[in-house]
Amino acid sequence: MTAPQLTEIDHVAIAVHDLDAAIAYYADTFGATVTHRERVEHDGVEEALLKVADSYVQLLTPTREDSPVAKYLANRGEGLHHVGYRVADCAEVLRSVKDHGGQVIDQVPRPGSRGTTVAFVHPKGAFGTLIELVQE
Amino acid sequence: MTAPQLTEIDHVAIAVHDLDAAIAYYADTFGATVTHRERVEHDGVEEALLKVADSYVQLLTPTREDSPVAKYLANRGEGLHHVGYRVADCAEVLRSVKDHGGQVIDQVPRPGSRGTTVAFVHPKGAFGTLIELVQE
Repeated sequence: MTAPQLTEIDHVAIAVHDLDAAIAYYADTFGATVTHRERVEHDGVEEALLKVADSYVQLLTPTREDSPVAKYLANRGEGLHHVGYRVADCAEVLRSVKDHGGQVIDQVPRPGSRGTTVAFVHPKGAFGTLIELVQE
Repeated sequence: MTAPQLTEIDHVAIAVHDLDAAIAYYADTFGATVTHRERVEHDGVEEALLKVADSYVQLLTPTREDSPVAKYLANRGEGLHHVGYRVADCAEVLRSVKDHGGQVIDQVPRPGSRGTTVAFVHPKGAFGTLIELVQE
């Protein structure tokens, strides 16, 4: 038996073409407002985080044409891009993914946005879902 | 200014072909286990809920060929299907969606799984994201 590793849905990430328009939609319709905004050069994205309880809605837009999110938008259009799960120890959970035959994108944890440590799990082997492990 | 309406990420919904295989993946890799399982005839799905803090990972599989989730799997494959936001008053938030020019799938709230009251917001007008409003 594997002990429970996921302590929170850290975020749902939504790829959009126009970050400011998406921010306005969530603010006007749902009263959800931006608590953090950051350009993440490693991933070629600008993100806006809307806090919902202890989780975030992460609105994402590409900052360059070769960004994976730019390719995602070109191929699939706007919408749900990945889900981030908060974990106590990113390296340990990444090891569990590999030990159970999963495919990883990051072989070792690396810096994420807002000072976190993160690793991505490949959707192949994860029932089509791009999963981010997030250690605060 | 719209007052904050989203009190929790109620669930992230993931469409899969084989519900038991997906359940086994989340249990083995992440130690996330099923706390609720239900066939929802209205939506033509069987769902398994894995509790993560005050949220759920909702694994979904179609129970009939004309189910929207069956069409989703045929067109886009397995992966993230929708996001559910918990709200205090589903009817009020649905009205806010319409008032702000959004498109709704359910004109009025209806019963959802595990005794909830729900309404779906169309991805057109919501930056490509199928959104479910969930009132417990």
